[in-house]
Amino acid sequence: MNPQRRPLGPDATIGILGGGQLGRMLVLAAARLGFRCHVLCPDSHSPAFDVVRSVTEADYLDMAALDRFAADVDVVTYEFENVPAETATFLSARKPVLPDPKVLAITQDRFTEKEFVTGLGIGTAKFARVDSAGGLVAALAIVGKPAVLKTRRFGYDGKGQIMIRDGADPTMFDELGGQAQILEAFVPFEREISVVAARGRDGAIESFDVIENEHKDHILKTSRVPANVSPAVAAEARRIAEEIAKAFDYVGVLAVEMFVVKDGAGHAVLVNEIAPRVHNSGHWTIDGASVSQFEQHIRAVAGLPLGKPIRRGRIEMTNLIGDDVKDMPKWLATPGAAVHLYGKSAVRPGRKMGHVTQVFAE
Amino acid sequence: MNPQRRPLGPDATIGILGGGQLGRMLVLAAARLGFRCHVLCPDSHSPAFDVVRSVTEADYLDMAALDRFAADVDVVTYEFENVPAETATFLSARKPVLPDPKVLAITQDRFTEKEFVTGLGIGTAKFARVDSAGGLVAALAIVGKPAVLKTRRFGYDGKGQIMIRDGADPTMFDELGGQAQILEAFVPFEREISVVAARGRDGAIESFDVIENEHKDHILKTSRVPANVSPAVAAEARRIAEEIAKAFDYVGVLAVEMFVVKDGAGHAVLVNEIAPRVHNSGHWTIDGASVSQFEQHIRAVAGLPLGKPIRRGRIEMTNLIGDDVKDMPKWLATPGAAVHLYGKSAVRPGRKMGHVTQVFAE
Repeated sequence: MNPQRRPLGPDATIGILGGGQLGRMLVLAAARLGFRCHVLCPDSHSPAFDVVRSVTEADYLDMAALDRFAADVDVVTYEFENVPAETATFLSARKPVLPDPKVLAITQDRFTEKEFVTGLGIGTAKFARVDSAGGLVAALAIVGKPAVLKTRRFGYDGKGQIMIRDGADPTMFDELGGQAQILEAFVPFEREISVVAARGRDGAIESFDVIENEHKDHILKTSRVPANVSPAVAAEARRIAEEIAKAFDYVGVLAVEMFVVKDGAGHAVLVNEIAPRVHNSGHWTIDGASVSQFEQHIRAVAGLPLGKPIRRGRIEMTNLIGDDVKDMPKWLATPGAAVHLYGKSAVRPGRKMGHVTQVFAE
Repeated sequence: MNPQRRPLGPDATIGILGGGQLGRMLVLAAARLGFRCHVLCPDSHSPAFDVVRSVTEADYLDMAALDRFAADVDVVTYEFENVPAETATFLSARKPVLPDPKVLAITQDRFTEKEFVTGLGIGTAKFARVDSAGGLVAALAIVGKPAVLKTRRFGYDGKGQIMIRDGADPTMFDELGGQAQILEAFVPFEREISVVAARGRDGAIESFDVIENEHKDHILKTSRVPANVSPAVAAEARRIAEEIAKAFDYVGVLAVEMFVVKDGAGHAVLVNEIAPRVHNSGHWTIDGASVSQFEQHIRAVAGLPLGKPIRRGRIEMTNLIGDDVKDMPKWLATPGAAVHLYGKSAVRPGRKMGHVTQVFAE
C-alpha cells in the first residue's frame, strides 16, 4: 500500500525540516490534531525545539542523522524552501516528502521559478538571466530600467539584491558574489498582495482570502485581510495561486506573493515570488480563520481532508520585529489582540520575534 | 525581589504538574506566548509529553525528581486538583506554586469545599459529613431524600458515589471503601452551568460567559455558550465564581460548576463543585473566544495582564469520548468545526480522546 494514499493515524509522527517559527507553528497545529512531530534543525536554539519531544540537532547534509530521522517519522515536510536537493532526495527514498521535492528544485531558483510561472501563461515582471558581469548590459536592454538585480538562489528579506536606476555597472555582478543572477524589471505596483492556498492529497484546493502586505526595510510588517482590491483582482489572484498549486501537483500550503499594477482602466496581477511553505502573510489565519494555514498544511501532508476556512472578520496582522517586542505589554492589554511570541531570547534588529493578530467586526 | 511579583521573562520555564490533555493544552498556550514548559507526570504516555522538550517522568512523591524539576522552572502550576499536599509543600519551598496550595487543601475534600462555599454565603445542596456506617442515618435525616453519598476525596466523573432514593443501607458506607464521606441532597436542577474565571496576580478578574453543560454517564458531553438562563441568573453565576476566586486570593483559572434550580417564580444558583484549574467546560474558549482559558491561566501564573475575552459567536463544544473519535472524518469535513485530538492512542470507553468546537453566528 502506498503510504501517501493512506491518511496518517493517531500514532503517526510528522517530520519537519527546519526549526524556526514556521516549524514551531506547524508543530503546534499538528499537536491540536493529535500528531507527534520530530524536528530536524542544525541550530540548538531552534524555536520549534521547545514544543516537541523528538529533536534532531544536525546539519541538513548529515546523512546518518537524516537516516535516523527518516526511520522515526511517517512523512516529511519542511518549513523553508532552501532544503538542499541532496537532503530531499535522500529522505524521499525512505519516506514520503511533501510537498514533492521537485517543487523545491523550481522555487529555489528565481529564474526557473519565473520561467515556470510564465510557462503557465501567468504574468510576472520582465526578467532575464545574468550569467556574467558582461551579460548585465544585455539583460538591461531586455528588461529596461529601473530594474533589480538578484541572486538566483538563497536571497530573502531584500538580501542579495541591488536596485539599478540609472545604468548598469559591471561591478554589480561581483557585488552579489559573481553567482548566477536574474535581472527583474522594477514593478511600479499599486499594492502588494499574497494568496495562501492549501491543496490536499486528493487534489482539493482551499485558498484563504487575498491578503494585502506592507513591507518595511524589505521585511513584512503588516498584513491586512481582505486586501483592498476589486472582486475581479481578488478572483484573479486566487485563480493564479490555485493554478500554480495544480501545476505543481502540490500537497500542502503554498503562498504566492503578487503585485497589483495599474493596467489601463483596470489592474494586472503579476507574480513576484512563490513560497512552497506556510508563509508569514498567513499567520493571521491562526486567530482570524476557522482553520489556520498551519493546520491546513498538516491536514494535507497527513492525507486528511482540508478544512473550509471561514474568516472571522476584518484582519490586521502586525509582525513584532526586533525591538517591537517591547510593545508586548501594550498588545497583551489590547482587547481582542492575539499575541504570539516565538520563544526567541536574543532580540536582533530585523529578527521576527512574534506577531499580533487583531480581528475587527466587518 | 519576590519572584511572584515580577512577570516572567521570555526565557522563563513554567513547570506543570500533570500531563493529561489539560496539561497539554496549557503547554500549547504557553508556547504561543513564547514560554517553555516542563511537565512532570508519572505516566510515560502522558499526552502533554509530546509537546514539550523538558519532561520528568516521576511519581508526585519522588522528592529527588521534584527537586530537579523545581530547579529547572520559574513557577509551578498544575492541571489537576489532586496534587498531594506533600508535593505542593515541597515545591512551594523552592519556587512559587500557583494557584496557592491552600486552595488544593480546600478543594480536594468535598466537605471542606462545601463548608468554604457556604461560609461565603453562597448556596449549595444540603450536605452533611458521614464518618461511619452508622452516621449515614443521621446524615440522611438532615439532608433528606433523595441524596447522593460520595467519598470526600478523589471522586470524579461519577466515580465514588451512590444515589440513595429510598433508604439508607449501612453497607453503602463500606461500598465506598469506608473512607470519610459526604451526603449531599440530590438537586432537581433545571440545568447545569459552569463559569470559568481567571484572576491575575494583580487581582484583576475576567470570567468567560456562562456555559451550559450536558453530561452523559456522569461525563461532560456537550457545552453550550451562552447558557440558556436569564440575565439575572447569568450575573449571579459569574458573581459567585468571582467571589470564590477573590476569597481564595486565587491566581490562575478556576471553574465553578453550578445547578440552576426553580425557586418560586425565579431561579436559585447552587454551587456543585469547584475545580481549581482549567476545565473541560472551558475548552470552547480556544476557538470561540479571543483569549482561551489556557492562555488566561498562563498569563496569570506568569504575572502578565489577563486578556479581555471576546466571544466569537454562539458555541457548541462536543467531547469526543471513547469511540466518538471515530467521527473524526465527519468533523474534519464540517465547515467551521475546530477539531482537537489529545494524542491518546488507546481508545477506551469513557476516555476523553478529543473535542470539537463549533462557532455559529449569533
